[in-house]
Amino acid sequence: MNFLNINQLKAAELEEIFQLADNFLIPDSNTFKQDPILADKKVLNLFFEPSTRTKLSFEVAAHNLGMSVLNLDELSSSMQKGESLEDTIEVACNLGIDACIIRHKESVIHDLANQFPSMVFINAGEGAISHPSQSLLDLFTIRQNFDQLSKPNYLIVGDLDHSRVLASFLEALTIVGAKNITLCSPPELGKNYSAGPNFDEDLNSALDGKDVIMALRIQHERLEGALNISATDYIDKFQLNHQKLLDAVGHDRFILLHPGPVNYGIELNADVKDQDYCKINQQVMNGVGIRMAILTKALLS
Amino acid sequence: MNFLNINQLKAAELEEIFQLADNFLIPDSNTFKQDPILADKKVLNLFFEPSTRTKLSFEVAAHNLGMSVLNLDELSSSMQKGESLEDTIEVACNLGIDACIIRHKESVIHDLANQFPSMVFINAGEGAISHPSQSLLDLFTIRQNFDQLSKPNYLIVGDLDHSRVLASFLEALTIVGAKNITLCSPPELGKNYSAGPNFDEDLNSALDGKDVIMALRIQHERLEGALNISATDYIDKFQLNHQKLLDAVGHDRFILLHPGPVNYGIELNADVKDQDYCKINQQVMNGVGIRMAILTKALLS
Amino acid sequence: MNFLNINQLKAAELEEIFQLADNFLIPDSNTFKQDPILADKKVLNLFFEPSTRTKLSFEVAAHNLGMSVLNLDELSSSMQKGESLEDTIEVACNLGIDACIIRHKESVIHDLANQFPSMVFINAGEGAISHPSQSLLDLFTIRQNFDQLSKPNYLIVGDLDHSRVLASFLEALTIVGAKNITLCSPPELGKNYSAGPNFDEDLNSALDGKDVIMALRIQHERLEGALNISATDYIDKFQLNHQKLLDAVGHDRFILLHPGPVNYGIELNADVKDQDYCKINQQVMNGVGIRMAILTKALLS
Repeated sequence: MNFLNINQLKAAELEEIFQLADNFLIPDSNTFKQDPILADKKVLNLFFEPSTRTKLSFEVAAHNLGMSVLNLDELSSSMQKGESLEDTIEVACNLGIDACIIRHKESVIHDLANQFPSMVFINAGEGAISHPSQSLLDLFTIRQNFDQLSKPNYLIVGDLDHSRVLASFLEALTIVGAKNITLCSPPELGKNYSAGPNFDEDLNSALDGKDVIMALRIQHERLEGALNISATDYIDKFQLNHQKLLDAVGHDRFILLHPGPVNYGIELNADVKDQDYCKINQQVMNGVGIRMAILTKALLS
Repeated sequence: MNFLNINQLKAAELEEIFQLADNFLIPDSNTFKQDPILADKKVLNLFFEPSTRTKLSFEVAAHNLGMSVLNLDELSSSMQKGESLEDTIEVACNLGIDACIIRHKESVIHDLANQFPSMVFINAGEGAISHPSQSLLDLFTIRQNFDQLSKPNYLIVGDLDHSRVLASFLEALTIVGAKNITLCSPPELGKNYSAGPNFDEDLNSALDGKDVIMALRIQHERLEGALNISATDYIDKFQLNHQKLLDAVGHDRFILLHPGPVNYGIELNADVKDQDYCKINQQVMNGVGIRMAILTKALLS
Repeated sequence: MNFLNINQLKAAELEEIFQLADNFLIPDSNTFKQDPILADKKVLNLFFEPSTRTKLSFEVAAHNLGMSVLNLDELSSSMQKGESLEDTIEVACNLGIDACIIRHKESVIHDLANQFPSMVFINAGEGAISHPSQSLLDLFTIRQNFDQLSKPNYLIVGDLDHSRVLASFLEALTIVGAKNITLCSPPELGKNYSAGPNFDEDLNSALDGKDVIMALRIQHERLEGALNISATDYIDKFQLNHQKLLDAVGHDRFILLHPGPVNYGIELNADVKDQDYCKINQQVMNGVGIRMAILTKALLS
């Protein structure tokens, strides 16, 4: 089956993926084991936008599962001679490649999935629209800290409008039944959300009583460009730092997430980095297990 | 042994390669099996021109055979510091690499093979001169459809003069004893062939009674550039479409081949794509098995 | 443990690495065997400068040891979005990658090693400062030709000031107790060494009685650029050729080394290439075994 977006999954399927990931975890460690159950499968990476953690994470996951990993990039492929992405996928199908992991700035993966039913497609980031594997590792990390994903109070802070992470995360929260979700950003970065009842422009009141706080990456050039928000202003009003979290949240069971890469000094102050509540490294670790689970479910079911 | 060109092979050796490929085929499927008989061998890909199907196909073949696959490209190698291709091959020899798969716009592979007798060289495309592994997968595909390779009536249509595929294919047809071979193109694209007895500028008469019809890629920019043939004109006179094939061939046992990537709308109309006679996807599939056979023969004999 | 520079190693540890490499050698051959003792380990290549022999050599070594090999380059990674090398390493740590092999034009590896104690760092070339794995393969090659590394008379000729190979090699010679070391270059390329007692500007006298003669690469553009030495002049006074070696060394037990890539016609005349004393190919071969030993020691101790 394809792994295209979060909405395709039911709560029971999310839980199934989490349990698969749990089973790959080496007990009492943060490391996922080698388990070559996909040793007869081949995966092709098609990354048309820069990536470090998602690409490496899928590669480590594929290696752990014993898969053959192939890479194709635009510059050295026949796309240089004008061959289309569709033709490239057709070649992959014919070569016996089992799955294509695609990151693209456009929403191309859904049409490809319709055109090539014999190929398994895995969405590794789709413009500003979706990033479903990221949401699953976020939920998996939260699940390691809270009994039930429906119970915590959630806050997401940052560049809401341009975040593919947010879009998929909100879908995922709906599926697991989360009800208390607050969004916080400057109005210029939250146009798609500011009319809703959960929007709060004031970070201090937004933080009050939250359990899961997710900061989103701010693209620096966007701030001082079209949006005309000064970085100083953003930092003053919306940066999360250790003292602000302690003062405003009001309890000490909260966790802090960020999809990375973090601009320390902008959306997060570096003083949060080594706090126990900061689970950013844990998110990256969990990326391996979740992507092992996604590959396994996609290729064995 | 090296795999440099088709002329080096006798008919019995072609048959041996086809039988090797047959043996790698999973029965009642189009897929080639994993058979790690070259697990102690290392192959280095040296592709100096863009490639999707040839490069991926050799990679899948090497993975299926259990080989270690290494890639080197001009930009990140010491060729950036002025190191020659000869020096690079000498390094590969000394590192214990067993085979180099080379695509290059110049005819460099023959000199390299003379200079480095301890390395196995595999030609993955040599300028406009030769593309021997493509010809073998073409013949293998024909062999799946006709009892004897010497019997069919062959037609090749398109940019004859600039096709490395044609050059190798004609050599291969000679070896298997094919006698009825017709070539068809605008005179501007067939200068090397138009004086011969098998040249026919009229596509309809050329199609009459043919069993194997191979279309070649037209480089669009070449048509309207130096050659001054309008694309409309080319399409009108030389494009193969479903109705033209049905009308002109005169029987229904023919097959259609194309080395890819196809410019649908130029040399082929898209309406041929899903017809039973169209074996273009089959050619790509067979590329894996033929390249497994080439690697096996090159490294184990 | 990290492998950052030569000075970190004691003589006994050098010998331990050489014996590990000896054990990987297939008897009566120049080839190193497959020995998948690191099949549960993952290595990430981070090469920020062009490389052929060092990169391929580490890759072949890692494949021989059964490791998963991952590659990341600046252009396709999140470094394109401004992510720092530190962040990239942190991601690698969290993904469960065991070792990072780094080539960089700056001295970044030492700080990284301090920041990330859970990662194993392997220095594959550090600007003009150090190239420790090269020195070990040089010593290993010398050790195959001389009983004791402390005994030979050493000469290093060429661009002393810009050579990371020389810097590490001199450290290594000190550790093994070598005492007779002569350096030779035009004064313009030996400013850091010409005041010392071992510097000799005259190649003929410098060659007299030497056992191990290492030539260093001359960057052609450097000669005629800032240094204003004509290539003709350099060749006349400092190029090593067969007759000059025979005439000036005075015995026939010497060996000739070069870290590669060689500019034949500049620092070496091509007539030395096929002489028995020329061990340049042997150095490349030994690179595989030494790098297998380095990876083994770094990851298993």
